[in-house]
Amino acid sequence: MEPADRIVRHFQEELEQLKRRLLEMGGLAEEQVRVAIKALVDRDPALIDRGITGDQPVNAMHIEIDNRCFTLLALFQPMAADLRAIVAAVKINTDLERVGDLAVNIAEAAQRCIARPPVKKLLDIPRMAGLAQSMLRDSLDAFVRRDLDLAQHVLDEDDTLDELKTQIFRELLTYMLQDPSTIEPSLDLILISRHLERIGDHATNIAEDVIFIVSARDVRHHADLRQE
Amino acid sequence: MEPADRIVRHFQEELEQLKRRLLEMGGLAEEQVRVAIKALVDRDPALIDRGITGDQPVNAMHIEIDNRCFTLLALFQPMAADLRAIVAAVKINTDLERVGDLAVNIAEAAQRCIARPPVKKLLDIPRMAGLAQSMLRDSLDAFVRRDLDLAQHVLDEDDTLDELKTQIFRELLTYMLQDPSTIEPSLDLILISRHLERIGDHATNIAEDVIFIVSARDVRHHADLRQE
Repeated sequence: MEPADRIVRHFQEELEQLKRRLLEMGGLAEEQVRVAIKALVDRDPALIDRGITGDQPVNAMHIEIDNRCFTLLALFQPMAADLRAIVAAVKINTDLERVGDLAVNIAEAAQRCIARPPVKKLLDIPRMAGLAQSMLRDSLDAFVRRDLDLAQHVLDEDDTLDELKTQIFRELLTYMLQDPSTIEPSLDLILISRHLERIGDHATNIAEDVIFIVSARDVRHHADLRQE
Repeated sequence: MEPADRIVRHFQEELEQLKRRLLEMGGLAEEQVRVAIKALVDRDPALIDRGITGDQPVNAMHIEIDNRCFTLLALFQPMAADLRAIVAAVKINTDLERVGDLAVNIAEAAQRCIARPPVKKLLDIPRMAGLAQSMLRDSLDAFVRRDLDLAQHVLDEDDTLDELKTQIFRELLTYMLQDPSTIEPSLDLILISRHLERIGDHATNIAEDVIFIVSARDVRHHADLRQE
């Protein structure tokens, strides 16, 4: 094998490894969200503690992946599609780290929430969480497989997430107006729904980056394209 | 001048230009926040409309700066400190674009809020906004001037922003518990304070990137260093 071929092959192996690590980090962040929501639904203080202190692995991976990206850029000086993929990886890494932070925020709000009597049976919040988690998973799969359809699917799902958030807000508002004793836990549930919405936003960012790097079509700031 | 020197000089000029554009984008994002908060305080519907539709310039700049970063990476293949600066620019660009989005969110919440009688005289929210804006400005100045002390100052200010947010929440909760008619506008004010907190988070992200690129010391995920 020629030295140049060897370098190309080494680069491609490193790039694959980078993608695998991003997938693993996404899995960890998703698991954090799952734990925080399960802790809320089951009103389980031990699980809540796990949710509040559970962002160490994601944070460690954030630094590791950032370093990997720097090393790849510095050593291989990739061009065109490869360069775009690595810059996208830097951004995706930031998105996933924020998802980890948001999972901690959810666990913190859940902790306050379960200190009070339940406002209502939680149905829409777990549904929202399930949707946000699957959007996150799909956006990362779309990145790894360079799958435009899947990325577009994530953008479409964001509308559903938004509707669920509005529905949760309206319902909780009714409770608060009827019975002031529900105000405090309701506020935390509203906050949790906003955190889940932001997790969906991060999945959307990732999907937009995928569309950009695969098709070189920039869908950011063109909400009209999302309606297609 | 040797061709190599000419390339270095051309790169340094492009890098300076990139930094100037980031500062301009920061100025635009900050102005958007200022407009949204002034619209809320003055209960001015025309200014609210400006706040809701005012993110076009920031969005256009987001795409332009992203392209600049790609071009610099592809054409000059910078190493070490220059590479770190450009990757930081990619991240900062993302942060500033989100600040623009948050300003729109603030204007939207303000629109709902002023449709109802005022809950109270707004003092802490403008104070929070002023602080978030100055954190943003300082974080960008710290990036451009590679100023570690200023970056550290931004991290310290974030605690004050957090205290203001908690204070606003407690006060509005009291109003809501006493008088259910204040629940809806109070929720929007709480939401606005959260948006301002997130603007502070973006300034903090930028400051952490500055500390990383200047000192190669990674302060991310080490909350203990912030207390120094």
